[in-house]
Amino acid sequence: MHSDPNCVFCKIVAGAIPALRVFEDADVLAFLDVGPLSEGHALAIPKEHFPTLEDMPADRFALVASRLPRIADAVRRAVGAQGCNLLLNVGREAGQEVPHLHWHIIPRVAGDKLGYRWNASTYPPGRGEEVRQAVKDALEA
Amino acid sequence: MHSDPNCVFCKIVAGAIPALRVFEDADVLAFLDVGPLSEGHALAIPKEHFPTLEDMPADRFALVASRLPRIADAVRRAVGAQGCNLLLNVGREAGQEVPHLHWHIIPRVAGDKLGYRWNASTYPPGRGEEVRQAVKDALEA
Repeated sequence: MHSDPNCVFCKIVAGAIPALRVFEDADVLAFLDVGPLSEGHALAIPKEHFPTLEDMPADRFALVASRLPRIADAVRRAVGAQGCNLLLNVGREAGQEVPHLHWHIIPRVAGDKLGYRWNASTYPPGRGEEVRQAVKDALEA
Repeated sequence: MHSDPNCVFCKIVAGAIPALRVFEDADVLAFLDVGPLSEGHALAIPKEHFPTLEDMPADRFALVASRLPRIADAVRRAVGAQGCNLLLNVGREAGQEVPHLHWHIIPRVAGDKLGYRWNASTYPPGRGEEVRQAVKDALEA
């Protein structure tokens, strides 16, 4: 299993840096974020080192994702939250600070002032169709 | 395959409501959000109706997730974005507006003022350990 000796999450996997672990199996580790947005805020990571989404085979990505429902449900119940966000920041511009793919599991309660900044817009006439075609072209390229 | 006749996303799956579809296979549909946070903002949904995370078997959840890397990469390249966020809002308190599980794929560029509200805190001494134990207990319950 590939690891990066300079990666802080690889060091947590190896036990060289302590963490408050909440779940662990052969492929996935989850632990509490040391800078939580809300009580119970956890990170779920592949034990293997993949810097970000495009470095990861789809089946490995799906394997990590398959653990999220159970971990998220336990986190939510443990802190008595009503809901949660699952968030993956892909790339520095998207808020990814550690280059080892990690899911944020963020418990939510009404009025907590968390969540994604939701400044919705609309497409000018015809632009949505152009963007759609560009995505379809990229999928086929 | 279970569908809900009153669900707007089930109507999109059935073709009864139009959408700018970018990806479709037997299990998953992705289309452009009509109120995009950024150009290319897409939703990826299971074709089958699952209101939210806790209603969905882990293997079905993982199957939908397995499509996300390819869709997200195409969206990002199509609009020339540097990164993206993958976001799942679980429950109304977490921002889920349509009760049919849906992934947001949100392209990101530097300085776009999007992203998650990041008001990090820290645990008082001992509290992190208590939360950790509560999550572990919930996982075993």
